[in-house]
Amino acid sequence: MIKVTILGSASAKPTADRHPSSQIVNIDEQYYLVDAGEGVQQQMFRYGINPLRLRAVFISHLHGDHVFGLFPLLSTLGLYGRQTPLKIYAPRPFGEILEYHLRYFDSELPYAVEWEEVATTEHRIIFENRSIEVWSIPLRHRLTTAGYLFREKMPELNVDKFKIARYGLSVKQIVAAKRGEDITLDDGTTIPNAELTYLPRLPKSYAYCSDTNRSAMVARRIKGVDLLYHEATYAESERRQAKERGHSTARQAAEIALKAEAGHLLIGHFSSRYKDTVPLLDEARAIFAATDTAIEGQTYTI
Amino acid sequence: MIKVTILGSASAKPTADRHPSSQIVNIDEQYYLVDAGEGVQQQMFRYGINPLRLRAVFISHLHGDHVFGLFPLLSTLGLYGRQTPLKIYAPRPFGEILEYHLRYFDSELPYAVEWEEVATTEHRIIFENRSIEVWSIPLRHRLTTAGYLFREKMPELNVDKFKIARYGLSVKQIVAAKRGEDITLDDGTTIPNAELTYLPRLPKSYAYCSDTNRSAMVARRIKGVDLLYHEATYAESERRQAKERGHSTARQAAEIALKAEAGHLLIGHFSSRYKDTVPLLDEARAIFAATDTAIEGQTYTI
Repeated sequence: MIKVTILGSASAKPTADRHPSSQIVNIDEQYYLVDAGEGVQQQMFRYGINPLRLRAVFISHLHGDHVFGLFPLLSTLGLYGRQTPLKIYAPRPFGEILEYHLRYFDSELPYAVEWEEVATTEHRIIFENRSIEVWSIPLRHRLTTAGYLFREKMPELNVDKFKIARYGLSVKQIVAAKRGEDITLDDGTTIPNAELTYLPRLPKSYAYCSDTNRSAMVARRIKGVDLLYHEATYAESERRQAKERGHSTARQAAEIALKAEAGHLLIGHFSSRYKDTVPLLDEARAIFAATDTAIEGQTYTI
Repeated sequence: MIKVTILGSASAKPTADRHPSSQIVNIDEQYYLVDAGEGVQQQMFRYGINPLRLRAVFISHLHGDHVFGLFPLLSTLGLYGRQTPLKIYAPRPFGEILEYHLRYFDSELPYAVEWEEVATTEHRIIFENRSIEVWSIPLRHRLTTAGYLFREKMPELNVDKFKIARYGLSVKQIVAAKRGEDITLDDGTTIPNAELTYLPRLPKSYAYCSDTNRSAMVARRIKGVDLLYHEATYAESERRQAKERGHSTARQAAEIALKAEAGHLLIGHFSSRYKDTVPLLDEARAIFAATDTAIEGQTYTI
């Protein structure tokens, strides 16, 4: 199960009630921070997310509205006595920025901050543990930018209790079936694995694509994704400005969701010019019905 | 008239509803930002303060909770197309930090950011214009820190209309009286200036002292100040920790206000441990009755 909590869904110009980009992806109570706009630590407190549970941080690009909140958060984790190293996945030259932050503000952190460079031109696994893989997605913005695709791994097969009883399977045979093997009984009959086992749940996936121009390549990379967060900085009436500024319109976000055959679309990264984002939602829903607005403090469960 | 709007009065550890140190000092609709904790730009929007009206910035010291909000604000002023240069008064090595910020995040700002070093061991005028002087106040914290004293200049004297009529003063004599001169009438009588003129208003003053240990020297520097903002990170029961961490207790803040013969005291920079700050207020009021808690969004007029 993947839970995505929106901490901020505004773009660079601040407003009194919206925060710049950041969200928490919670997979089996492991927290991953995706982008870190100003105020992210306070937003975590506001919505009851313990920052000490952070496993890793993924930064899409080095525009301030996606990263200025990270440095205060690093300081606070130090005040709280974090000792576990923290990995930060971000494009170059994040390492240099981190170095100056540590030099001037956090020279005595009680934990290590480790930067892993994300190559924003490649679609590949950049993070992996027992339960998930995180893939980079090349995006098209004004400076090098990566999206991130979180994929749960295929869970272990369960062996059907009734089939175990019916065929009198031994422990050894059950273990083999869990591995996906067909089972040959003592009488020589072979039982295909599919008859014996089932997936306890389907692995889920979540893609974060911000900031970016509309890109058909992105749709191919995330084909079949369960939930897609796609930026929709502008309405279609501002399509030209969207293109020039490396952004998308709400309609374009919906087109990508449609092309990717996504299960659900969340739009965000709204320009401060839209006091009311309902017209953006309507525009996207006309193309892709299963669209919602990313609302701060809301958690979307896949 | 001096108006102080509190944008944040918390200390380093964030809470869901308090912001780190920052405030706007408004003197004749010229805005001065004093400290710039994370979220300061959003707080300005929230409380209707136009960031384009900023005249100058005064940073007390380079702990993150007093400065992390400045960099996003610099970016935003760029997005809004500010062209007027912005002066930032801050201790060393602020210039180096600013240089990094500009290099990585704001290499194309449409306005100049100019750093003026504040010597934190000296009490002297660091900023001056027609209506005010700003003085540095050496504070005692874990790293070099300055407080700031805003003093309105003496306003021009007004000449009493009734006295003008009574003595039949000429324009030349009125101008001389405004300059503070005594006036000799045609009959040889000399009228002392004090009889002819009055101050239209008394010049006001405001002192910001955060972060600091209790310091009797500070009380002498700000003698007779109309409003004093003094940090009160801890209650008196934590006096030892206050001392070790370079902070003050609420009682100590009140003692400084008393010693300085301040008109009014605002306490702030509260540790996150105090969900309820009323006990800190009570503690200070027991020593100095004219004390209030610095509340975010409130404006205190002198």
